[in-house]
Amino acid sequence: MQVYLDHAATAPLRAEARDAWLAAHDVLGNPSSIHGAGQAARRLLEDARDELAAVLHCQPIEIVFTSGGTESANLALKGLWWARPPSADAVVLPDGEHHATLDVVGWLASHERAAIRAVGLDRLGRIDARRFAEALPGAALATALVANNEVGTLQNAGALASAAAAADVPLHLDAVSALGSVPVDFAAWRGAGAAAGGLVALSVSAHKVGGPVGVGAAVVSRHARLTPLVHGGGQQRGLRAGTQDVAGAAAFAAAATVAEAERVEESARLAVLRERLIRGILTTVPGARLLGDPVDRLPGNVHVLFPDAAGETLLFLLDMAGIAVSTGSACQAGVAEPSHVVLALGLDDRAARSVLRFTLGRTSTSNDVDAVLARLPEVYARAVASGARSVGGS
Amino acid sequence: MQVYLDHAATAPLRAEARDAWLAAHDVLGNPSSIHGAGQAARRLLEDARDELAAVLHCQPIEIVFTSGGTESANLALKGLWWARPPSADAVVLPDGEHHATLDVVGWLASHERAAIRAVGLDRLGRIDARRFAEALPGAALATALVANNEVGTLQNAGALASAAAAADVPLHLDAVSALGSVPVDFAAWRGAGAAAGGLVALSVSAHKVGGPVGVGAAVVSRHARLTPLVHGGGQQRGLRAGTQDVAGAAAFAAAATVAEAERVEESARLAVLRERLIRGILTTVPGARLLGDPVDRLPGNVHVLFPDAAGETLLFLLDMAGIAVSTGSACQAGVAEPSHVVLALGLDDRAARSVLRFTLGRTSTSNDVDAVLARLPEVYARAVASGARSVGGS
Repeated sequence: MQVYLDHAATAPLRAEARDAWLAAHDVLGNPSSIHGAGQAARRLLEDARDELAAVLHCQPIEIVFTSGGTESANLALKGLWWARPPSADAVVLPDGEHHATLDVVGWLASHERAAIRAVGLDRLGRIDARRFAEALPGAALATALVANNEVGTLQNAGALASAAAAADVPLHLDAVSALGSVPVDFAAWRGAGAAAGGLVALSVSAHKVGGPVGVGAAVVSRHARLTPLVHGGGQQRGLRAGTQDVAGAAAFAAAATVAEAERVEESARLAVLRERLIRGILTTVPGARLLGDPVDRLPGNVHVLFPDAAGETLLFLLDMAGIAVSTGSACQAGVAEPSHVVLALGLDDRAARSVLRFTLGRTSTSNDVDAVLARLPEVYARAVASGARSVGGS
Repeated sequence: MQVYLDHAATAPLRAEARDAWLAAHDVLGNPSSIHGAGQAARRLLEDARDELAAVLHCQPIEIVFTSGGTESANLALKGLWWARPPSADAVVLPDGEHHATLDVVGWLASHERAAIRAVGLDRLGRIDARRFAEALPGAALATALVANNEVGTLQNAGALASAAAAADVPLHLDAVSALGSVPVDFAAWRGAGAAAGGLVALSVSAHKVGGPVGVGAAVVSRHARLTPLVHGGGQQRGLRAGTQDVAGAAAFAAAATVAEAERVEESARLAVLRERLIRGILTTVPGARLLGDPVDRLPGNVHVLFPDAAGETLLFLLDMAGIAVSTGSACQAGVAEPSHVVLALGLDDRAARSVLRFTLGRTSTSNDVDAVLARLPEVYARAVASGARSVGGS
């Protein structure tokens, strides 16, 4: 029996999402077509937009459906950059961001000559709102994670958005890991007003909440100045061309609606499992250390430093035992580099290669926690021995 | 009973695609994850890549899965532009291209100061390969449709690719409307060699061949110089970041494989229906005229000019009669502009507002043709009368 503790990489498809996807195919039509078949598809699409807007606390017209969180972040950051005032040349980028924003800003720096204003994290992975505010004046845009996808630390999204509004700098929030786990409230974070600054864009992804892979959304304020990433047929306010994926949108809306309805209760359940897993690991593996914020963290995230053991070896040995975990972001899996997030906490290269991320989700049970705790001491001992041998042999 | 003659806008999902999509969800894992679950997902993804490569006659590594034809075209054109040699500043663009390339090139012109070298069409919608060749020298890139999505004209893709290879200019072919209807052979059109010029990119979309909406692919030669459109986790040779949609890729591959297996027989069947529909229309509606190439045309495409009748009125009246057709590209439906494709054939603004596109597909039958022919004379008479009234009343 597989123990899947990598829900942050991708979560199982919810029955409600599958059913919505299948039902949408009973309607044959391109929602841009003006005949009756097209308009029936259009109604399904707009229903999905309404549902998702209710979950994210934004207006339906602010929802731009995309192919996922990464495209959403690319649309937001490149789009804001290309539409910036000529005098603005800097991007405010906290350390430890996801590659979907980090690599976009890197490209803006290398290809478009953007200046990067980095903002450090504290040892718990928190962005200091005061330092963030100090970096903002005159910047073209800023970006931040609502919840760190590796170490699970929750940021004070409201404070970051307020700082951006005060500086009149457009802010993108990456809420991919947050959705379904913590409140995501675009309207509250944005506040009132018609300014082109403050929170103007927010990225989410369907497959992290039990929707299909390949579907996501960017919430884009009506007041944002944004150039499209994908040009073409003029769909979705001209911000994202391409035939609109009615079935994907319907499935995403269905999954997000259920995830949000269950969120408070489910987060409490996961937090109990999470705490039991943390306590169990710290008890059974001497020297193991929880990274990220111990209090303000994603309910399903357990991120642990295992001294003297390579994360990849631990992952491999647990996988052999039928337990799927990760060393960090799945997007970077297989890349033999230390986690830039762990380095941003002030730890060294060796530590950044000695971490494991366990992420619990809706199918996780107490038995999964038991399975990890039963296997981990032996797995850890073997990983340490393997590391000692490989050091000895080099 | 609905008569759906808008298969070019979107085609019904094939059972094989639906089954592949559902089956892929039995495997839970992100294909970038290195544990066993992730690697099982990876195998499904690579199987899909192999299958689609066999259909398109390219190497599996050349397949970049995207969210659809529009994103693929954006990746190809912007990607080639950003990676161009500093001396190249022009884009070769035939008239009458799809908005997925037309609007990208427009943005390259307005935002990136690309010079557009337009190549006219003849009155049948054909690109003159000699004029195309004359426009190429020193250009940064060129693009062309394999088959025109509105008027159905087939281009000589091999000749265009040869011209691009001779000029050493990278060429993108938009094969979205061609796939499943006519041969699409990347290797043959590209030819041998390691040049960065000639055919280097080709766009296709799943939902035009019975796969799901929201999935497509760009074939990108290993020798192409291309900057990514979507940056992030480094998936797919670094050319297209974002969690890879295993289920979508599997469904696309399944649909494309069946479509290709049935292509010759199905195209012959559709061409018979098409000819009967064309003959019937021209017989029953005096003055009606077929646009596009009468011989080298998509097997399911019937594009007709109805003098003195507004295309939108005809569409509306046919829709009332349960027959779904289109005035042109679905992507531009609802936009009150004359078709730029029809204008490119040398017809005037009035003519470009008096056209209808009927597109047959795999669920089309002889009864559908009968239904159109039974209704059209009355519908046409009413549309002409309605136009005369509105002219008289203005």
